[in-house]
Amino acid sequence: MSAPGNWGRWGPDDERGALNLVDAEATRRGLSAVRAGEPISLGLPMRTGQGPVAGIRAPMQHFMTRDGGDYAAGLPEKPGYGYADDSIMVACHGTTHLDALSHVWRDGLMWNGYPAARVTSRGAARCGIEKAGPIVTRGLFLDFAADGDGLSPGEPIGVDRLDAAAEAAGLRPAAGDALIVRTGWLRQWREGRATVESWPGLDADCADWLADHDISVVGADNIGVEVGPSTVRGSAMPLHVTALRDLGIAFLELLDLEALAGRAVSELLLVVAPLNIVGGVGSPCAPVAVI
Amino acid sequence: MSAPGNWGRWGPDDERGALNLVDAEATRRGLSAVRAGEPISLGLPMRTGQGPVAGIRAPMQHFMTRDGGDYAAGLPEKPGYGYADDSIMVACHGTTHLDALSHVWRDGLMWNGYPAARVTSRGAARCGIEKAGPIVTRGLFLDFAADGDGLSPGEPIGVDRLDAAAEAAGLRPAAGDALIVRTGWLRQWREGRATVESWPGLDADCADWLADHDISVVGADNIGVEVGPSTVRGSAMPLHVTALRDLGIAFLELLDLEALAGRAVSELLLVVAPLNIVGGVGSPCAPVAVI
Amino acid sequence: MSAPGNWGRWGPDDERGALNLVDAEATRRGLSAVRAGEPISLGLPMRTGQGPVAGIRAPMQHFMTRDGGDYAAGLPEKPGYGYADDSIMVACHGTTHLDALSHVWRDGLMWNGYPAARVTSRGAARCGIEKAGPIVTRGLFLDFAADGDGLSPGEPIGVDRLDAAAEAAGLRPAAGDALIVRTGWLRQWREGRATVESWPGLDADCADWLADHDISVVGADNIGVEVGPSTVRGSAMPLHVTALRDLGIAFLELLDLEALAGRAVSELLLVVAPLNIVGGVGSPCAPVAVI
Amino acid sequence: MSAPGNWGRWGPDDERGALNLVDAEATRRGLSAVRAGEPISLGLPMRTGQGPVAGIRAPMQHFMTRDGGDYAAGLPEKPGYGYADDSIMVACHGTTHLDALSHVWRDGLMWNGYPAARVTSRGAARCGIEKAGPIVTRGLFLDFAADGDGLSPGEPIGVDRLDAAAEAAGLRPAAGDALIVRTGWLRQWREGRATVESWPGLDADCADWLADHDISVVGADNIGVEVGPSTVRGSAMPLHVTALRDLGIAFLELLDLEALAGRAVSELLLVVAPLNIVGGVGSPCAPVAVI
Repeated sequence: MSAPGNWGRWGPDDERGALNLVDAEATRRGLSAVRAGEPISLGLPMRTGQGPVAGIRAPMQHFMTRDGGDYAAGLPEKPGYGYADDSIMVACHGTTHLDALSHVWRDGLMWNGYPAARVTSRGAARCGIEKAGPIVTRGLFLDFAADGDGLSPGEPIGVDRLDAAAEAAGLRPAAGDALIVRTGWLRQWREGRATVESWPGLDADCADWLADHDISVVGADNIGVEVGPSTVRGSAMPLHVTALRDLGIAFLELLDLEALAGRAVSELLLVVAPLNIVGGVGSPCAPVAVI
Repeated sequence: MSAPGNWGRWGPDDERGALNLVDAEATRRGLSAVRAGEPISLGLPMRTGQGPVAGIRAPMQHFMTRDGGDYAAGLPEKPGYGYADDSIMVACHGTTHLDALSHVWRDGLMWNGYPAARVTSRGAARCGIEKAGPIVTRGLFLDFAADGDGLSPGEPIGVDRLDAAAEAAGLRPAAGDALIVRTGWLRQWREGRATVESWPGLDADCADWLADHDISVVGADNIGVEVGPSTVRGSAMPLHVTALRDLGIAFLELLDLEALAGRAVSELLLVVAPLNIVGGVGSPCAPVAVI
Repeated sequence: MSAPGNWGRWGPDDERGALNLVDAEATRRGLSAVRAGEPISLGLPMRTGQGPVAGIRAPMQHFMTRDGGDYAAGLPEKPGYGYADDSIMVACHGTTHLDALSHVWRDGLMWNGYPAARVTSRGAARCGIEKAGPIVTRGLFLDFAADGDGLSPGEPIGVDRLDAAAEAAGLRPAAGDALIVRTGWLRQWREGRATVESWPGLDADCADWLADHDISVVGADNIGVEVGPSTVRGSAMPLHVTALRDLGIAFLELLDLEALAGRAVSELLLVVAPLNIVGGVGSPCAPVAVI
Repeated sequence: MSAPGNWGRWGPDDERGALNLVDAEATRRGLSAVRAGEPISLGLPMRTGQGPVAGIRAPMQHFMTRDGGDYAAGLPEKPGYGYADDSIMVACHGTTHLDALSHVWRDGLMWNGYPAARVTSRGAARCGIEKAGPIVTRGLFLDFAADGDGLSPGEPIGVDRLDAAAEAAGLRPAAGDALIVRTGWLRQWREGRATVESWPGLDADCADWLADHDISVVGADNIGVEVGPSTVRGSAMPLHVTALRDLGIAFLELLDLEALAGRAVSELLLVVAPLNIVGGVGSPCAPVAVI
């Protein structure tokens, strides 16, 4: 059996996968995609106890370790200033985040054939999130919820729909581009019309599309980029396996794409700057789209 | 007494301060500064228990909530995949971070005259970090440690030195630019030659320079951008007061600028994407320089 | 207006309130109450993401920082042993806990007249939980759920019912005794028959009973000892104010009393050992009943 | 090779080890040891960032999620009361704590032969701390620092010294008793005269003494009960292996025994109430001595 997808393509020691496709040309292509010169955050608001996946992962907590209330209660400013401090406790995959290539494996092997056993309580000795960032490339934005309520829970987006949407938008994917998909799920969830049990997303056959176009990063406004629950029998996360693990493509999940809706934008500059968590299998982040 | 610095300049309800100076023109200027098309992370590595300020603030903790060890110990993959998950506990000002305008005040008033009392255990009701990002602008990079060991602990960089360095680099600051200063302290600290007690940095008189050039963001490879300890009697953090509080300029602290050293770069594209912590008085982040 | 309840009774500097009533005699009375010599934990199980009040306060998190999986994944034992380590993140009032006297106030004053402003981000400078423990005294156990399903949500237990139950059990309260009340709410909640919105508990008039008998500690198998929601207009937590704040009586909440049900026990030795959190306004704990 | 120590003694499914020795008789013996009727906490104060082992494990953090400062800053009391809330983040072995029998193993096997692989990111499926408590028994208190400065760093207490001290105190150990040893290390550490690198404690040969007397719990005012560093070549924690793992004896570490010094007490009632952390490999706690 030959090695899956892109394994070995960037050498046996590679830990960055398809992010290697983001070369200077891809970065410049991203810079050239900017029209209005307007940066937009794609990161969800983070509030104590809130968030789409609070029922699945531990909700984020924000702690103030010093604040204005302390001064109101009598703490004197000294010398010449007062200040506030804070801390956060956050599940790395519990809000907008980038998956590291160490996040997922199959048959005990993650990207490039590294054993899953390299990921222990000490973190990921291989393919940690610190190997991923920063990402500066062109983003192809496909809005499947542009004309209304968004897709239905569990509705898959197959290769044919990807092709049609890209063509309609006049997009010609190039190596190293990012694909950003809006399904409408996040808006539905905010409005109480959707749950974390089921969401629209990319179908399993999209792995071929991502491979054919040498996509470096794929993101969506849902929980797992790919449709949930899975449409493939016996595989709960087929695209995570074939795209993240086999192709080495980074996943951006729980993107907040609402500010891009209705902007008539189909390409943009995407900047993703995960925290440099050494051995992290993911990082909360607030990706930036510059349109 | 007139209002300090820029208070009121962007209206009585403004919570973004000098970040308002980063308009489309400033963003495009930043994009135009890119030469090689190479993104560089300015974020410190984050490891459990490590970091420059572990003695001052709580050290970062990285927890694995599921990992490859669990599978090695017998957990079966199902259905069709295995995965790892993690969480972090981090002091927002304990690693590379952006200060929110709610981080510092004097005489009970923060930026634009908002009472410090608006910052409570619930977070900052005004000027939270979620109001700041994303920042995409040109960065002016001044390397005061380019030719050797870096500046001395407690050594101030005054306006004259800023001017001389900018002129030597051929830089002409424009409204909305970011100023990024390398002092060499971080390298010294890593090599055990410096402590968190004292560091080189901007002197108090630099507030005028920042104001005159309408700088939006100022950052450095030290603990507080400004020199520490303070050179001003009776004021422990004079530049925080006159620049962050009075002028509304955002501070980037604990930048890792080592990868920029020796690159013969003096301007770059700077992208800062703080986490959208609602009411946060700062956010850990990994700013990106694109050179 | 005279000082409320017990304020001043143990001097103007007192921070222990009615726990002062637990003298050597009360402790010996507790020791003498033991019959079978059997210790029983009254602490709820603590599991990541679970617990009665997860919707109100942040759920507990248990992190393994080293475990057997790490060794299964290849970490060698050295020298001569292997080990596991863990950490917890827990809301002090989110599982079985003892309230400190700094937990509640009214009109800006807590127990003994201390200003609420003494409780800041640094913790409680007065009446912190470290002043409370350890508590070793006799516990009077009244089981209002002994004969069936337990009381109804929102059902108040008034003084008359306390008196009747104590008399039926042949109990004669003495100064320094603890009162432990089983309502059946916890069992109902576990079985999905009750929510955190409403629970049976002591009615507001019980403050007199507690005062008359010089009770030192009061606990129950519900969220707030007193009935919820409150039966008193304009006061959400009347017994917390009149008993904890005015009388200085410590509150034990979310007790797991299921193991005491059906044991035909009405008095017992109660040992409460809160963590010595300096300035804590409460502490998770697992009180011990010795029957 | 026969099974080590007590393995199998309480059946193949046992997870409590020598705590089985604490029967009703042992509990009553403890109750009978009380003279003055005075409870004393043996738990260290817990403060953010402080503690003996902050350099080894993550220091404790105490967060206020609501406090009096919030009210001073304008939050109205409603309806009829104000309150404070808090959370803690604590390494279970980073302050006074009870080790679970799942804390330590050798050759991949913990107490009673359970595989170490049963301890994963989900916690300890066998021998979790929730199986241990509560403990109510007689404590034998031996104070090796009674007459001065305490033992020297790295000074071992061998069986001969245990015997001599017990005899001098007129103690006759009985099955199920706890052994509590004061070395003086904690006081030295507090006064800056000792470090976490080296401490006095029980020597490896004490395992026989603990076995011969059927001791249930052993505790000390140092980091690991046993002397550190180890006196046994090739074994960093010999007593943890022979006493905790082989005999099933629970370890109480970082006890604060200062309040017992000079009290002329040699036996006492010991109550240990670990938090019911399901799958915990240890628990912070504040054991109670009643003298």
